[in-house]
Amino acid sequence: MNSILVRELYEEIDTLPIVDIHTHVQWKTGTAANIGELLSYHYYTELTNAADYEQEPLPFDDPQELMRRIYPKLAYIRNTVQYDWLMTISRTLLGIEAAAWELEKNWETIFRASEKVMGSPEWTTEVIDKADIARVFLTNQYDEDLEGLDPTFYTPCLRTEPFVLWMDRPEERKALESFLGQPLRSPADLDAVIDKTFDKFMRHGMGYAAMSIPSGFQTRHVTDEDAQRLLNRLVEGASWDAAERETWGAYAMNRISEACRRYGRPFHLMIGVSRDVYAQGVPSGQDLFDSVNSMSGYEYLFNTYWDVPFPTAVLSDTSGLELTAASWIRHNVYPSGHWWYSNQPTDIAREVRRRIDAVPGTKPIGYFSDAYYLEFILPKFRMYRFELTLALAERMERSLIHPNMEPFTMDDALFLAEDLLINNPTEILGIE
Amino acid sequence: MNSILVRELYEEIDTLPIVDIHTHVQWKTGTAANIGELLSYHYYTELTNAADYEQEPLPFDDPQELMRRIYPKLAYIRNTVQYDWLMTISRTLLGIEAAAWELEKNWETIFRASEKVMGSPEWTTEVIDKADIARVFLTNQYDEDLEGLDPTFYTPCLRTEPFVLWMDRPEERKALESFLGQPLRSPADLDAVIDKTFDKFMRHGMGYAAMSIPSGFQTRHVTDEDAQRLLNRLVEGASWDAAERETWGAYAMNRISEACRRYGRPFHLMIGVSRDVYAQGVPSGQDLFDSVNSMSGYEYLFNTYWDVPFPTAVLSDTSGLELTAASWIRHNVYPSGHWWYSNQPTDIAREVRRRIDAVPGTKPIGYFSDAYYLEFILPKFRMYRFELTLALAERMERSLIHPNMEPFTMDDALFLAEDLLINNPTEILGIE
Amino acid sequence: MNSILVRELYEEIDTLPIVDIHTHVQWKTGTAANIGELLSYHYYTELTNAADYEQEPLPFDDPQELMRRIYPKLAYIRNTVQYDWLMTISRTLLGIEAAAWELEKNWETIFRASEKVMGSPEWTTEVIDKADIARVFLTNQYDEDLEGLDPTFYTPCLRTEPFVLWMDRPEERKALESFLGQPLRSPADLDAVIDKTFDKFMRHGMGYAAMSIPSGFQTRHVTDEDAQRLLNRLVEGASWDAAERETWGAYAMNRISEACRRYGRPFHLMIGVSRDVYAQGVPSGQDLFDSVNSMSGYEYLFNTYWDVPFPTAVLSDTSGLELTAASWIRHNVYPSGHWWYSNQPTDIAREVRRRIDAVPGTKPIGYFSDAYYLEFILPKFRMYRFELTLALAERMERSLIHPNMEPFTMDDALFLAEDLLINNPTEILGIE
Repeated sequence: MNSILVRELYEEIDTLPIVDIHTHVQWKTGTAANIGELLSYHYYTELTNAADYEQEPLPFDDPQELMRRIYPKLAYIRNTVQYDWLMTISRTLLGIEAAAWELEKNWETIFRASEKVMGSPEWTTEVIDKADIARVFLTNQYDEDLEGLDPTFYTPCLRTEPFVLWMDRPEERKALESFLGQPLRSPADLDAVIDKTFDKFMRHGMGYAAMSIPSGFQTRHVTDEDAQRLLNRLVEGASWDAAERETWGAYAMNRISEACRRYGRPFHLMIGVSRDVYAQGVPSGQDLFDSVNSMSGYEYLFNTYWDVPFPTAVLSDTSGLELTAASWIRHNVYPSGHWWYSNQPTDIAREVRRRIDAVPGTKPIGYFSDAYYLEFILPKFRMYRFELTLALAERMERSLIHPNMEPFTMDDALFLAEDLLINNPTEILGIE
Repeated sequence: MNSILVRELYEEIDTLPIVDIHTHVQWKTGTAANIGELLSYHYYTELTNAADYEQEPLPFDDPQELMRRIYPKLAYIRNTVQYDWLMTISRTLLGIEAAAWELEKNWETIFRASEKVMGSPEWTTEVIDKADIARVFLTNQYDEDLEGLDPTFYTPCLRTEPFVLWMDRPEERKALESFLGQPLRSPADLDAVIDKTFDKFMRHGMGYAAMSIPSGFQTRHVTDEDAQRLLNRLVEGASWDAAERETWGAYAMNRISEACRRYGRPFHLMIGVSRDVYAQGVPSGQDLFDSVNSMSGYEYLFNTYWDVPFPTAVLSDTSGLELTAASWIRHNVYPSGHWWYSNQPTDIAREVRRRIDAVPGTKPIGYFSDAYYLEFILPKFRMYRFELTLALAERMERSLIHPNMEPFTMDDALFLAEDLLINNPTEILGIE
Repeated sequence: MNSILVRELYEEIDTLPIVDIHTHVQWKTGTAANIGELLSYHYYTELTNAADYEQEPLPFDDPQELMRRIYPKLAYIRNTVQYDWLMTISRTLLGIEAAAWELEKNWETIFRASEKVMGSPEWTTEVIDKADIARVFLTNQYDEDLEGLDPTFYTPCLRTEPFVLWMDRPEERKALESFLGQPLRSPADLDAVIDKTFDKFMRHGMGYAAMSIPSGFQTRHVTDEDAQRLLNRLVEGASWDAAERETWGAYAMNRISEACRRYGRPFHLMIGVSRDVYAQGVPSGQDLFDSVNSMSGYEYLFNTYWDVPFPTAVLSDTSGLELTAASWIRHNVYPSGHWWYSNQPTDIAREVRRRIDAVPGTKPIGYFSDAYYLEFILPKFRMYRFELTLALAERMERSLIHPNMEPFTMDDALFLAEDLLINNPTEILGIE
C-alpha cells in the first residue's frame, strides 16, 4: 500500500458530495434522537447477540435500556468494521472520542452526551452538512404518507415485496385492497393497484421500484389466466403452496416491470436473501444468504424488459462475477453497490476491481449505504471510498509499469471515482 | 507493489516466446485487414452494446461502417482491460498513439492508417515477430480445409461440439454424414466419423480435441444400445427432449475420449458456458455462465479415461478452487489458462496464486489468448504475464521473510514462469 | 508488503504457544519414526501421484521404499506450500538443509539421517518443545483405547461418522454393537451407545464431537418412529437407499447434538467433502469437494441445538462468506480454521480478512493443523501465522490513514492474534 498516494487520493475523492441511492431512512425524522437509537441498528444488536447470546429480548422501545444492555458487549466486536462505523459517528458527528467507549460503565455518560447533541433542532442539518449528502433515496411502502417530502433531497422508492412476495398473506392483501379502494380479484386489479402506487410515487419524484429477492427466484412468463386462477384460490380462502407462490412471484414481477417500462423508471433488484433462517436472532438479524444461487433466474426478466434499467445488487460473493459479466454484456443491467454481508472490505475490494476492469465505466453505481438513519451514511461511504481509493491508487501504480496501459493519472482516478459515485447513479436513475 | 522488482521481472519474462494453446485464429489469413475487423471482436461490440444499446444490428460485413458506429462508444469503455488490449495493438503494432482514439470523429483517420499498415504483405509476419509468437493452436471444424496449413507454426485442434452437443440438429447431422460419406445411423457410424476426423487432423499435426461445455453437464456411462435408440429416433424424424440430449452428450463425450486415448491426444475441456441467454446481444456476445456449476459432473470422465490428459479451463470464478483441487490430486487434469469472463486481472490473480501454491509446477498451462486474430495475442499475453509477474515478485518478497520458505530468487521465478508459459504446454500437449 | 513490519509482527506472534484444536495425531506415538513415514502423509503421495502417475500402488508398510519411490517426484512439487512444510521439518527439526533434497539419489542419506534423529527417545519431546505446542486435540474412534492418554496435553475428540454416516455398513454396525455389548436395534440403543461413548470420552477430557460431512447434507427433524423403521430394515438384512441413508444421517446427527447438549460439549463440523471420487488416487488422496454446497442445510441443526456451540470449518471457498455471515449473526457458530483444499495462502488470506473485519473477535478459532504426526504442526501453523501477520500488518497500515479507524497498534494486533490462536479456542472449547 502506497500510503501517501492513498491518503492524497482519498482526500480528493472525499470532497465529492454523497448521492446515496438506497437507504431505509425515515424521511420525516431522518436522524436519530440519541445514540441508543443508533445502536438499535441491526448490525449492533446482531453482532453483540452473536458474541454473547441472551434469551431475553432487547427493549427496542427503550433506547436507553437497549444501550445499557448492549454496551458491555461492544468490547467483543471492536475488531469489526461495523464498530468503526459507530466510532466515526461518535468522533466525527457527536464529538465523543473512541476511548470513551472503552471505559467500563460509561454508557450513560455517552447516552446523555448524545441526547444533548442529537436533540438540537439543527442536528439533521448538521449531519447532512458534515457528511455533504446531496441526495438520499428512500425505501417506501406503497401506502406510506409521502406528503411534505422534499423531493430535492429525498427520492422515494417503492418496495414491491407486498405485490410480489406477500400477496397470499390475508392482512397484506387487505391492506392493498384498502389502498386501492376495491377488492383485488383479477390481474386488472393488480395492475390498478400498481398504477395507483406508481402515480402516487411519481408525484413525489419516484426513484425506482425495488425488491429484495429470495435465493432461487425464477423469473418467467406467466399468463393472466394462471394469475387469475391463483387469485381465485385466495378469494376462496385457500392458501398457496410453494409452487403457486413462485408462479405468482414471477407474474407480479413482470407486472411491476411493465409499470417500470410505462412510467420510465428503473427496477432495483437486490438478489439473494434467505429470510428468517436464524431462530434466535434479533429483529432484522435473522436473515442470511445462500451461496448456491444463480443469476440465470433473471434471464427472462432482463430479456423481456430490455428497455427497463435494472440496477442490481447481489448478496452472495458467489454472484459477484455473474453480476460483473451480466453488466459487461447486458445493456440494461447495472452493478449497484455492495450489499449487506458483501458490504465489508474484502468483498468490496474484489468487486470494485472486477467492475472497473471489465464493465463500461458509465455503468457501475458505486455504493449505497442501506442506512436506517442519516448518521450512518458518512461512515459507510467512507468505508467504500477507502476501498475504491485503494483500487484506483493501485491502478495508478500499475499503469506506470503495465505494458498495456497508458499512465492512469490522479485526474483519471478522480474522473472514474466521480462517475461511480455521482454521474452514474444520477444518470442511470434519471435524477437531478 | 514493488514496482522496480515487478518491472525487472516482467522484462525478463517478456523475453519468452509465446506458445498460445487455444485461439480461434483463421490460419489462412491469421491477421485482420484493418482495425474495423479487429473491432468486430465480440469484446468491443458487446461492451459498447452494453454501454449504449442500439436495436439496429451492427454491419459485420462492413468493417469501416462498423468502426464508425462503435467509435464514439469506445469512450464508455476506456476503463476496461479490453480497451487496453486495443490500445496495445494500436500503439505497438500499428504505431497509432492512444491519444488519437480520444479525438472525436477521428475514426476514419485511424481506419485509413490501419489499412495502410495492415495491408502490407509483411503484416502477418510483422505481428508474429513483434509478439514473438512461436506456435498457435487453432480451433477447427471437422470438415474444415486444412490443406496447406503450416504445422510448424499452427496446430489444428478439433472442436467436438457437432458430435456431442448438436447431433439432433438436422443440418449438423447432414454435414457430418456428408463428411463421412454415408448415413450416420449407429454407434459404429459415430466412431467412423470420429476416426475419419482424427485421421485427418493427425495428418496435420493435431493438438487436441476440445469442447466448450454447458453449465450442468454430467458425464456418465451410456450403453451403445441407448445411443442406438437415440439415433433411431432421429432417423425416424423425431426430436430429442432435454434428457435425451444429455444422454447423447454423455455418450458422445465418451466416444471422443476413446478416440483421444487411441490417438494419444489430450481432450481440452472448457467448462461452464451458458449459450444464447442475452436476447439483445451482439453475435458472440449473448453467452454468460452460471455460478452454480460443479466439476463433480466430470468425475466419470476423468476416472474412466484416466490415461487421457484433460487440460481444463473453467468459466466461473466459483469453479476456480475446484479446478486447483482437481489438478492437485488428479493425475490427468491440468489447469489451463483463464477463460473469458475470468480472463481479467482480479480473477487471474487469484487463480495464478492458487495454482503456483498448490498444484505441481509441471502441470499448469499458464495462458491461452482465445484470440480471433493474431493481433490480439500480444496484448492478452501481456495482461497475463503482468499478473504472473506480480504473483512471482510477491513470492520473491515473501520468501525473504517467510518462516517456511527458502529464498525464491529471480532465477527461480523465471524457471517457474517458463514452465507455465512454455514447458508445460509443450510437454502436456506433446508438441515441438 | 511492508517486510520490516511483517517480520517484526510475525516474530512476536511466533512467541505464542500452539493450541491445535484438530489433528489426526496418534497419541501413543505422536511423532514419526523416520522421514519416510512423514512422506506417507497424503499431501506428498497425492501431489507426486498427480504429477507423475504410476499404477503400481505405493508401499505404505515400507517407509524406506515409499521414500525411494516418491523422492525423484518431489522435484515436481517444489513450488507448493506442502513442499515448504516438508522443508521446514527437514531444516528446523531434522537439521537437514533444503539443498540436500535437490540432490539426485540422495534419498537414502536423508532417510538414514532422519532415522537417527527421529529414533532418539527424546524426539517427541524435542518436536513439542521446538514447536512450543501446548495442547493437541485428537480425532478418535469411539472404541479406541484411551487409557494412558495424558489429558494435560492431548484432548480426545469423537469422530461421529460411524454413528451418522456408516450405520448401514454391517461391519460398522457390528463393531458398534460389540462396543455397546448388545444389539443395536432401536433409537434407545443408539442413544445408549452414544452415551457410553461420551461417558468414556468425558473420563479422558473430551474436547468435542466431530464430523466431516458430505456436500449436500441436510439437517432436519426425524422422528424416532422413522429411525426405528430404518433400523428394522437393517435388522431384516435389507439395505438403505440414498434417501434412507440421508434420513438416518439427519436423525443420528440430532442424537449426537442432544448428547453434546447433555454433556456440555461442542460439535465440530467440517462441511463439504466428496469422498472417494478419484478412482486412481492414493489412500486418503481420493477426496474432493463440491463448489455447489450451501450452509442452508444446517439451519435446522443450528436453530434446534441453539445451546450447543458449533465450531465450523468449510472445505469449499464458495462457503467462506456463508461461514463468516453465519458466525456474524448466529451465536453458536464459530468459524474454525482453514480446511484442506482451502488450507493454502490464497484462501486463508481472504477468509482471515473477512473474519477479522466482520465476526466478533471473540469467536474465530484461528487455525488447526489437521496433522497426522506432531512434526507437521509447526510448518502448518507457521503458514497460517504468516497469513495472519500479513492481514494484521495491513490493518495497522490502513488504520493510519483510514477515515473510520483509530490507530491499530502492534499491541492491538498481538491481542487479536492471541484471541484467534489461544483465547478463543480454549474458551469456546472449554479447556485449560
